[in-house]
Amino acid sequence: MPISMSGVAIASFEQTLGALSKILDKAAAHCTAKKIDPAVMLQTRLSPDMFPLMKQVQLTSDFAKNCVGRLTGEPPKFADEEKSFDDLKARIAKTLAYVKSIKAADIDASAEKDVTFPIGPQQTLTLKGEQFLVHFVLPNFYFHATTAYDILRHSGVEIGKRDFLGRA
Amino acid sequence: MPISMSGVAIASFEQTLGALSKILDKAAAHCTAKKIDPAVMLQTRLSPDMFPLMKQVQLTSDFAKNCVGRLTGEPPKFADEEKSFDDLKARIAKTLAYVKSIKAADIDASAEKDVTFPIGPQQTLTLKGEQFLVHFVLPNFYFHATTAYDILRHSGVEIGKRDFLGRA
Repeated sequence: MPISMSGVAIASFEQTLGALSKILDKAAAHCTAKKIDPAVMLQTRLSPDMFPLMKQVQLTSDFAKNCVGRLTGEPPKFADEEKSFDDLKARIAKTLAYVKSIKAADIDASAEKDVTFPIGPQQTLTLKGEQFLVHFVLPNFYFHATTAYDILRHSGVEIGKRDFLGRA
Repeated sequence: MPISMSGVAIASFEQTLGALSKILDKAAAHCTAKKIDPAVMLQTRLSPDMFPLMKQVQLTSDFAKNCVGRLTGEPPKFADEEKSFDDLKARIAKTLAYVKSIKAADIDASAEKDVTFPIGPQQTLTLKGEQFLVHFVLPNFYFHATTAYDILRHSGVEIGKRDFLGRA
């Protein structure tokens, strides 16, 4: 019984981006309740040389968008111009709309396709579609989604793993 | 072109558990260099009501072990008796040995099998094997692996995302 590229990719992105959007609602409400400037929360980091919350969410979006885009053609560019929790939620919604706009059959046909993608300012890597999804996209996608969660949890926002799993 | 349950599960677990083991080496070396008691580092948390590093690694191991175990039969119990970085590395090695001991064909045959698993002290959930892997195991597995990384990164250990991806 085989499973499909789209079944893994789309299901993962929908569940966790949906969960992340609701987590941002709780973060925004926490800022209001505690009189925290949302702009400060959005620039909060776990270490001075790590990306802040804002960028963690943008990267979570990018790994989902670029995954389905690169598996099936060329991904659109999303400018990193967000300034608020609402902007980030709109970014997530735009990402999900793009993911859903791609035909599952096109994603499913990409398992053995060569996918070339940047892994730094000057470097690219080429992997088969399945390897790209499993070895590169999923760990990166979950890395940034979890780190966004960890920044908020560390900052006192009342969220739990059920929120991360989208079951809350 | 379909992909397989084992291709997704085993590849994910091998890559990230292997990476986590090397990250623990860097954490242990950091403790030695900075005269930090390893027992303190292993009990470090991002928030007082989150699990410490030790438990994050144990849970990463458990989600991998229980995934292949539940997809194919009954997973073994691993007692949470680790006391050191070396113990945690042995736990990861034991987990990988167990994952590799399961026949890929048996994992591949589990996509439509009903899998019942605990989601709390009193609750169980039943999902088809594919849903169990994609909606439950992968987000949980990466959640705990990333949080282990984030605890160490927040504590000043010199690691980067390449370490997390196993490409360092």
